[in-house]
Amino acid sequence: MMQLDVDALEDIAVGAAVLGTGGGGDPTLGKLMAQQAIAQHGPISLISVDEIADDAWIIPTAMMGAPTVLVEKIPSGTEVLDAFRMVERRLECRAVATFSIEAGGVNSMIPMVVAATFGLPIVDADGMGRAFPEIQMVIPTLHGVTATPMAVADEKGNHVLLETPDNVWTERISRAVTIQMGCSACVALYAMQGKIAKRALVKGTLSLAQEIGRTLKRCQQEKTHPIQALTTLLSGRQLCEGKITDIQRRTEGGFARGELQILGLGPDAGQQFRLSFQNENLVFWRGDQPEVTVPDLITVVDEQTGLPITTEGLKYGLRIAVLGFPCYEQWRTAEGLKLVGPRYFGYDVDYVPLQS
Amino acid sequence: MMQLDVDALEDIAVGAAVLGTGGGGDPTLGKLMAQQAIAQHGPISLISVDEIADDAWIIPTAMMGAPTVLVEKIPSGTEVLDAFRMVERRLECRAVATFSIEAGGVNSMIPMVVAATFGLPIVDADGMGRAFPEIQMVIPTLHGVTATPMAVADEKGNHVLLETPDNVWTERISRAVTIQMGCSACVALYAMQGKIAKRALVKGTLSLAQEIGRTLKRCQQEKTHPIQALTTLLSGRQLCEGKITDIQRRTEGGFARGELQILGLGPDAGQQFRLSFQNENLVFWRGDQPEVTVPDLITVVDEQTGLPITTEGLKYGLRIAVLGFPCYEQWRTAEGLKLVGPRYFGYDVDYVPLQS
Repeated sequence: MMQLDVDALEDIAVGAAVLGTGGGGDPTLGKLMAQQAIAQHGPISLISVDEIADDAWIIPTAMMGAPTVLVEKIPSGTEVLDAFRMVERRLECRAVATFSIEAGGVNSMIPMVVAATFGLPIVDADGMGRAFPEIQMVIPTLHGVTATPMAVADEKGNHVLLETPDNVWTERISRAVTIQMGCSACVALYAMQGKIAKRALVKGTLSLAQEIGRTLKRCQQEKTHPIQALTTLLSGRQLCEGKITDIQRRTEGGFARGELQILGLGPDAGQQFRLSFQNENLVFWRGDQPEVTVPDLITVVDEQTGLPITTEGLKYGLRIAVLGFPCYEQWRTAEGLKLVGPRYFGYDVDYVPLQS
Repeated sequence: MMQLDVDALEDIAVGAAVLGTGGGGDPTLGKLMAQQAIAQHGPISLISVDEIADDAWIIPTAMMGAPTVLVEKIPSGTEVLDAFRMVERRLECRAVATFSIEAGGVNSMIPMVVAATFGLPIVDADGMGRAFPEIQMVIPTLHGVTATPMAVADEKGNHVLLETPDNVWTERISRAVTIQMGCSACVALYAMQGKIAKRALVKGTLSLAQEIGRTLKRCQQEKTHPIQALTTLLSGRQLCEGKITDIQRRTEGGFARGELQILGLGPDAGQQFRLSFQNENLVFWRGDQPEVTVPDLITVVDEQTGLPITTEGLKYGLRIAVLGFPCYEQWRTAEGLKLVGPRYFGYDVDYVPLQS
């Protein structure tokens, strides 16, 4: 059984931020919390989904809200534990493990806090193979798994337990609750048993994130080109390289929304590009033409180091590359595209699978 | 032990709407639900607070939201039962009775549905001696009783259980949840044990409501003047009589807010009056001078029948009388006025106790 230590978390945080397509929050805060928990309680066991007994429960944990707020409103560290226990209590079960519902910066780390503190293993899987802004946008929804009972807890001691008829209602109500809590909260949801987890989760996400982090570290040490290494590892391609010339952002409906303007440099010199985001990057435009859209992954990285930049870290003048990676195959089904395709987000654009 | 039958509910609904100062919703819908429950399950026992054992639990139930919406969005009838059971389950108790948290139209009737269906008695008391628009505005708050665990349930099957550090947080979060549910929901909250109930509830509210209803019925039968009878029974006075010349209303932040303009008639001929409301009537103005304010009761009645008119029933051209009644004495303390005085609602006006 693999053990995750403080160093492993460094690599996973970087890798998950690459998979997080700009969303899931800056991992720094979550990483510090998780590293502190490991320092106090010891390393975390990483297990595969297949090791979970069919009738055993696993419960993911996460932070919910606008990433722009997450970096300023610091959790007390106990509310995510409260949320986890609230779901256990409602289900009258003891979970055998926790996991990340999304591969995103802060949300790759939050379950580590739970795992280390409670001495539970973490499952090498996630619910998306990337990050998405809304609760219902997970592969488990495609398999009929309900998000509820869902627990929402904040640092002021507010605890809310939801049970809803479907995952879209979960999103609506928990979003309103999160906004009242100050636009960020800790949540536990999508509790599931081993039998369904084996079908409904994206396997190997944490190992992949760790491999991404290691690759970028190796490139830095060996002074080799990180972007080539990333696109090879993730079977994707570079969409453009350039300089950020404008960024518009607004915190709206509990989300960080905005648009990024990029002026091409190097091989793309003189071309105009645009990137639309809602917590995560949604659509990459070449001029006025949409070129890559959700559910494929669109990640902004530093052009020199290949390190991922979350949407709240985007700034005028940064030299960046935008990379595209193919999404998990189940997202490309009709049901998957209905849940997370560009039309759901309000873009009158057909999804065309990324060509690598 | 007194039994409440279908006829008793008629009187109580009218009386509670008088005490409800325009809020608490039109009682018609709740009354029909409660009468149906009595027809099916038999009459309801009315008990006094003093009959409740010190360690026994009682749980009030209510509808929450904008009364303007309540009259159009019909509950399924089971969600209030769900809310009651959710609080029981959280407290690991079986309640011995239910009661009204406020003396308002629909909220005098909703607990009757629970009482009849579950075969529980209803307590002859309430939490305010009137109606108020926000969760924390109850006498139990002055006695340190927490509103949570609070259950919120809607007709679509959404169930939310809240636990919060104080009753103002309960209001904020449950209001946001109620808005998502479509601006109305059924709730159970302020569960308390007999010992505290004896100190923290306003006693005799249902008997008083029934007496008000009977009085108005008798006046109608005997063709005697109803307004005189009402002001005598409730130790209040008539503030004005006149015609509604304008009404402005808006559903805002989950509340029905607005202003009523009244042109005086009869003894008040030619004078201008104004009434400000937020679900309930808050301030009565004679010209530009505030004359009566919360927490004293301001009730609009039909000038002929003395029947109460809820804020959503106010219409241009109606001939009305506005009546003022003194509030429950504990509201007149410094703590009480901080919670529900005119300044809390944004009026730069000192509270002056109603002179009868």
